[in-house]
Amino acid sequence: MKPFAEMTKEELQALRKELAVKYREYQGKDLRLDMSRGKPSVDQLDLSMGMMDVLTSDMDLTCDDGTDCRNYGVLDGISEAKELLGDMMEVAPDHIIIYGNSSLNVMYDTVSRSMTNGVMGNTPWCRLDKVKFLCPVPGYDRHFAITEYFGIEMVNVPMTSDGPDMDMVEELVARDESIKGIWCVPKYSNPQGISYSDQTVRRFARLKPAASDFRIYWDNAYTIHHLYDLDQDHLIEILAECKRAGNPDLVYKFASTSKISFPGSGIAAIAASQNNLVDIRKQLRIQTIGHDKVNQLRHVRFFDGIHGMVEHMRLHADILRPKFEAVNRILTEELDGLGIGSWTMPKGGYFMAFDSMDGCAKAIVAKCKKAGLVMTGAGATYPYGKDPHDSNIRIAPSYPPLKDLEMAMELFALCVKLVSIDRLLAGMKE
Amino acid sequence: MKPFAEMTKEELQALRKELAVKYREYQGKDLRLDMSRGKPSVDQLDLSMGMMDVLTSDMDLTCDDGTDCRNYGVLDGISEAKELLGDMMEVAPDHIIIYGNSSLNVMYDTVSRSMTNGVMGNTPWCRLDKVKFLCPVPGYDRHFAITEYFGIEMVNVPMTSDGPDMDMVEELVARDESIKGIWCVPKYSNPQGISYSDQTVRRFARLKPAASDFRIYWDNAYTIHHLYDLDQDHLIEILAECKRAGNPDLVYKFASTSKISFPGSGIAAIAASQNNLVDIRKQLRIQTIGHDKVNQLRHVRFFDGIHGMVEHMRLHADILRPKFEAVNRILTEELDGLGIGSWTMPKGGYFMAFDSMDGCAKAIVAKCKKAGLVMTGAGATYPYGKDPHDSNIRIAPSYPPLKDLEMAMELFALCVKLVSIDRLLAGMKE
Repeated sequence: MKPFAEMTKEELQALRKELAVKYREYQGKDLRLDMSRGKPSVDQLDLSMGMMDVLTSDMDLTCDDGTDCRNYGVLDGISEAKELLGDMMEVAPDHIIIYGNSSLNVMYDTVSRSMTNGVMGNTPWCRLDKVKFLCPVPGYDRHFAITEYFGIEMVNVPMTSDGPDMDMVEELVARDESIKGIWCVPKYSNPQGISYSDQTVRRFARLKPAASDFRIYWDNAYTIHHLYDLDQDHLIEILAECKRAGNPDLVYKFASTSKISFPGSGIAAIAASQNNLVDIRKQLRIQTIGHDKVNQLRHVRFFDGIHGMVEHMRLHADILRPKFEAVNRILTEELDGLGIGSWTMPKGGYFMAFDSMDGCAKAIVAKCKKAGLVMTGAGATYPYGKDPHDSNIRIAPSYPPLKDLEMAMELFALCVKLVSIDRLLAGMKE
Repeated sequence: MKPFAEMTKEELQALRKELAVKYREYQGKDLRLDMSRGKPSVDQLDLSMGMMDVLTSDMDLTCDDGTDCRNYGVLDGISEAKELLGDMMEVAPDHIIIYGNSSLNVMYDTVSRSMTNGVMGNTPWCRLDKVKFLCPVPGYDRHFAITEYFGIEMVNVPMTSDGPDMDMVEELVARDESIKGIWCVPKYSNPQGISYSDQTVRRFARLKPAASDFRIYWDNAYTIHHLYDLDQDHLIEILAECKRAGNPDLVYKFASTSKISFPGSGIAAIAASQNNLVDIRKQLRIQTIGHDKVNQLRHVRFFDGIHGMVEHMRLHADILRPKFEAVNRILTEELDGLGIGSWTMPKGGYFMAFDSMDGCAKAIVAKCKKAGLVMTGAGATYPYGKDPHDSNIRIAPSYPPLKDLEMAMELFALCVKLVSIDRLLAGMKE
């Protein structure tokens, strides 16, 4: 098939008629397909069922240092868990604080603490007239929701294939003291699956922000979430790079086991410089006596070190890889060369991003929904839900079984075609 | 022995000499006794080891409503957990939000949210010149630490045997709009073990605060933590009483299973009116996708309903009761009639309070420490660590084994006598 833009009005109308018949067939199937969130599938959850057996009533729940994991205490996590998550996050255990079940919660609390009590002695943000965050776009809706909740103004920074536009980042943080942070998913980014290039990471570590309380919010959510065994993206470790660049306090790094063990029942962590950790602990000891050490111990015993965790991630990859490849295959078969969309095929993470013709994303997602396929809302990948081009759609291949996913993507491609034709026809009228 | 105040200088000096010999004997024993915190003992922790066996890899971790507890979702808790904690907190399940492992964390987050985003549409506290909390004293140091952290001014309200001085509470909240809350441990209070009388609870529910965003922070930490089976304190349920009084939104109620299952690995909850819950959820859905549902399910299956939980608390009581009674017995044997201290013997909870002669508490705690017994720091039971009478000392009988506890209390009584004699002798010199 030739590019839609090269078709005549008549050709488009004829094609539209044909595709509309197919669409009605889908509507008749009473589908209920959900690709809205990056949820692991049931198969993936089954991989971690052994978590339920590693601690039993006849066992000693004592740490190496003699801590009884069942009782109060240990503010920043048992040392075994710090070692495991340190290995996962590529930082030394003493740069880690282990939290509860959600890195999102850690990020929220980090912004919240900065609002009420400031960062390392700086003025609390709630006392400033204006606080801004840079938001590489497209990005993660839950990041944007946090900054929006606190009334922080979000400034879009376009993503490139190397990560955020660093010329823009450098310039903005250097001249605007009200810019206090930037949201980053540096590896297998949400939603594009882009990993920041070495240059990008180095430029991040060398930033010279006007605000001394500016921090990079480095949400390394997919640090070991590869699809392939050898063909993996590699990221320069940001804490060490910041230290080398003379900016040791510039970054907060976040991660969790949510997509390694069980979402909602994993363990999360922050990694940062000692100065930052001292600052964080001052608040943390007011907020809690300590997080769930029994669950920390459960993770330590189940994974038995980073190698066990990496082997476990291979099993996840074996389930996820065919799904990502199916999405890529179907999009290629259905849409390649038509000039009505482009997409990413990442080597890890949980998402792919589809870019339609401008002004089509909302209509495509709506059309999918009317046939029983729920995609992430169009616009969700932009601050305030406003995609200026109305073109970005996040694809989350993980949750549906492969057969459902294939049907969903065929339907999706069909909707892309239909909406694109409508758009082109509307343009011809004008 | 006659009251110390009736002794002559010579009698006191002779007694001091005799007691000093005993004190040196304790110092020679190289004791390491810790009564500083309300931690359950190892025996108590052993009671909940069955928690480790209720979920296994061959089980279905699905809720009654079909929710897979292993995956993301369910912002405010699985319905089974709401029912269990609802029964525990004496409110309907739909008035409950289940949180993570710590009610302290829930309280912190509640104050933090009020600071940054306000209560039900009211001005965020961080934008106000002055925010105050009423603090019944003596009270819980970690409550006071939260309000101090946020720069909230704390106003002492004396405790009576019926609860806080309600004349003072009523008057203050009615005339001062900057008063936004009051910290309450209404049952078996920390540290005195006082339960609020029916009149006190009714007066709380009928408060007419000047501030529409004033809330009672009702930390019902010891709701089912009785020492006796029949001789239990009973508290009028505050949510229902507030509703009856036409003040449905006046209270946040907090509780957790920290001292029921495992501290640090329990589940916590807030109970409040629907208006408050709607307000809370607006924030909660930004902060997290959901708390640990697997742990919620673990609690539900282990306790098998409120009756199971109550039976479980009997086993805790069997361990705690002899300890509380030993403290009371030793203090009575050693100090009764001497006029140098008084104490409470509660029917539940985790603490007893000792009141020394004015100006002696710090010295008593220091003297204990020099002989190897760590008590809660004197002053800790007051905001800013400032006990105006320097007389209140919290006693936490739970953690040490009974034999250690007995020795600790004998040493404590000895220190009380020694410090009191010094105080009396110093008074005679003046």
